[in-house]
Amino acid sequence: MTTNITTTGELLYLRISGNIEHKLKHNVLKVGDKLPSLRTVCREHGVSMSTATQAYLELEKKGLIESRPQSGYYVCYSYRSFPAIPATSNPVSKPAAEETRELISKVYNELGNKQTLLFSLGVPAPQLLPIPRLNKSLTKALRTLPDSGTGYGQVEGNAKLRRQIARSSFTWQGKLEEEDIITTAGCINAIAYCLMALTEKGDTIAVESPAYFGILQLAQSKGLNVLELPTHPQTGIELDALENAFKNKRIKVCLLMSNFSNPLGSCMPAENKREAVRLAEKYNVPIIEDDLYGDVYFGNGRPVSCKTFDESGMVLWCNSISKTLAPGYRVGWVAPGRFKDKIKSLKMYNSISSGTLEQEAVADFLENGRYEHHLRKMRQTLHTNSLQYIRAISEYFPEDTRVSRPEGGFMLWIELDKHVDTTELYDKAMRQNISIAPGRMFTMQQQYNNCMRLSYGLLWNNRVDNALKYLGRTIKTLQ
Amino acid sequence: MTTNITTTGELLYLRISGNIEHKLKHNVLKVGDKLPSLRTVCREHGVSMSTATQAYLELEKKGLIESRPQSGYYVCYSYRSFPAIPATSNPVSKPAAEETRELISKVYNELGNKQTLLFSLGVPAPQLLPIPRLNKSLTKALRTLPDSGTGYGQVEGNAKLRRQIARSSFTWQGKLEEEDIITTAGCINAIAYCLMALTEKGDTIAVESPAYFGILQLAQSKGLNVLELPTHPQTGIELDALENAFKNKRIKVCLLMSNFSNPLGSCMPAENKREAVRLAEKYNVPIIEDDLYGDVYFGNGRPVSCKTFDESGMVLWCNSISKTLAPGYRVGWVAPGRFKDKIKSLKMYNSISSGTLEQEAVADFLENGRYEHHLRKMRQTLHTNSLQYIRAISEYFPEDTRVSRPEGGFMLWIELDKHVDTTELYDKAMRQNISIAPGRMFTMQQQYNNCMRLSYGLLWNNRVDNALKYLGRTIKTLQ
Repeated sequence: MTTNITTTGELLYLRISGNIEHKLKHNVLKVGDKLPSLRTVCREHGVSMSTATQAYLELEKKGLIESRPQSGYYVCYSYRSFPAIPATSNPVSKPAAEETRELISKVYNELGNKQTLLFSLGVPAPQLLPIPRLNKSLTKALRTLPDSGTGYGQVEGNAKLRRQIARSSFTWQGKLEEEDIITTAGCINAIAYCLMALTEKGDTIAVESPAYFGILQLAQSKGLNVLELPTHPQTGIELDALENAFKNKRIKVCLLMSNFSNPLGSCMPAENKREAVRLAEKYNVPIIEDDLYGDVYFGNGRPVSCKTFDESGMVLWCNSISKTLAPGYRVGWVAPGRFKDKIKSLKMYNSISSGTLEQEAVADFLENGRYEHHLRKMRQTLHTNSLQYIRAISEYFPEDTRVSRPEGGFMLWIELDKHVDTTELYDKAMRQNISIAPGRMFTMQQQYNNCMRLSYGLLWNNRVDNALKYLGRTIKTLQ
Repeated sequence: MTTNITTTGELLYLRISGNIEHKLKHNVLKVGDKLPSLRTVCREHGVSMSTATQAYLELEKKGLIESRPQSGYYVCYSYRSFPAIPATSNPVSKPAAEETRELISKVYNELGNKQTLLFSLGVPAPQLLPIPRLNKSLTKALRTLPDSGTGYGQVEGNAKLRRQIARSSFTWQGKLEEEDIITTAGCINAIAYCLMALTEKGDTIAVESPAYFGILQLAQSKGLNVLELPTHPQTGIELDALENAFKNKRIKVCLLMSNFSNPLGSCMPAENKREAVRLAEKYNVPIIEDDLYGDVYFGNGRPVSCKTFDESGMVLWCNSISKTLAPGYRVGWVAPGRFKDKIKSLKMYNSISSGTLEQEAVADFLENGRYEHHLRKMRQTLHTNSLQYIRAISEYFPEDTRVSRPEGGFMLWIELDKHVDTTELYDKAMRQNISIAPGRMFTMQQQYNNCMRLSYGLLWNNRVDNALKYLGRTIKTLQ
């Protein structure tokens, strides 16, 4: 007799598929190899036929194996043949902020068309969101909040929500308490208050390069100078460059997307995070940590954050549920360390309090363990998606294409032949109702013209496949 | 046969009570005068006994008449005996911003106690809000919005809501269109974006004096200098002083609460509004118009706004439903005139978009005419409240007390003998769980120590009556 769950709580079929994936990763199984029959899997693993089938389906969804009629299952892909990842960025200093601004508003203004396939947007497909359950939490909030949530909330935010956030900090070995947290209108709003608290017009901030354009725009609107630093697509910001900047460039604050950065997908190793915090303390430069994608990891557990190592309150840890539950709810937060009073005041002066209903709904959703359940599913889908997308890109795009290989988040960073101009690609693709994010959006300097960001938040289907095929074909004409 | 509605659509009993109130106002009826019997009213006005009774009840609720058993109704109050209103303010220049800051946080930190009677808060009592109907609009939003409102909304805000706001601008002879409006997280958030767009650290802004402390704090947090200008409790900011400031003080922007200002209750006459706009154009100083209380008028119609006269886009008109529907929804907006693009960008950079659900709920509420119906009731209650409060103050407070006589809004501004220190009164009252807003909160200079703001948003009852009695008694000991 078999059960569906292993002793460690893992689903059986996932253990089997994971086992095979491991072999693919390490080239034990190669493209063209025939896999054991389903019957063999049943016998060897002591599982039912349906569990074995589920395991193979899982691998098929990821595009790693394929079934051939009357023959069985074959490896159709191996990790070895994944495209190379881009090199560490080497940001230039040729300011062109106006161009960036214009390109961003162009891309943004063309998002409205419902027919467009939005590879350019870093949001999850609605199908990935737990909408009916969230609605339940919201109607419950209407019933349970005093005066149905019509009154002002506490300035620092819903207490239950802050308690839940504090509790879940153990997943990244954080030690937050309810009082450490202030809720905001999404993560960018948290970052906006941090910049308001820590900088003045003319100050310089250090960021990864390429960087999320929302940060660049925000900084620019505040009259800040942005120093873009070399960043590796897997390990994140280069620490030597960071220290050098801290030492020589009068950096007022440093902004890091430590986990699965947008757009690079990099994830700083724990040691790098610890070192970044040490540098922040040594040079007295606060770190604004944008940890928006930290919960969307594909590995075995959540990576730690810079905040994990923050003993002196120099890290302002920002996050939200916009990428995992509901962008439209505008529920985010910050644990601002030693800058808490200032951030709380700024929130009060600028908006008094946050929306009461959504905060309570999210708190309820988190409290009941639904969030972790939802995240498990979401991570799996996105992981599968990421592999599907990368596989398709390596198939359809020119051979010298470099693609990041994120271990979490929503984004691929793609580097094309240096003659390809992705703003030109953008224009052509838009005529086919395909929207991509050209690399120039992610820097205020003249660079990344041959790069693009592609979100895999859209569910995999034929239209996506065809769109990637189209992009690959078009890129070849632009080389 | 009688109907309950006059040919002009007015409720009959209100016409009768209005008629008598007019006589009281013009001293045709004086304190102690006996009123016609209910039978006489029926005969003279051709109305039913219940309509006549309702008319007298209305006057009784306002504390203007009283019934004496077996004798009939008597005038117990006349407008003539209302306290004098304060003189035009004459702001001094003795900076004490730190004191203001400390006092405000003290008062704010003590708001949490549910037992406290909050005369200090400028919000409507929950009983004044149409909570069940609003809940219906919200659950409808969950049903009708795509993906139940989990997705990002348009940066400029919910289109239906903006359409409704534009439509209702005819009530103040405004000519707004949907495209002129950008929604925000409440009115203060709209003002915050306006200041962000128009000012830099070190700039000077002109405001009424006394001014809403939220504005003072916001300005201070942005490093702005605040010039407080003489303001009359009925006609608002003094235009000579305003022009003088525009001419000689390098004013970057002027912030006016044109209708039923907080805390003074002043309402600029239409002519003054027109002139303020002319000055803004002449001296090229934009006006941020905070029109938060404009809809809560007690007279026959809504007063116009500065925006009514704005041909050149120099007025940034800010408003919200926080004082009339649901503070906790954080739904506000701005019609920023010629500064629209800048405000829209700032909103996008700082928060991407606003909460989708509450915007849709409010739009639905406005669309169905429920809002006007609700406002009619609310205005009447608040008008009655204001008279009750003023009557009680004139009865319980020392004779030389001056009280504003607002024609709308929620607030009374009270000026006491100059030896009375209202921060001392605040401390004493808090020991009785009564919270007032000391005058020092409404200025960054050393002044208004003998003033206070009292909200009449709380429903009238014995506890309120007793609290006012207590305040009156205590003030007498402080003189």
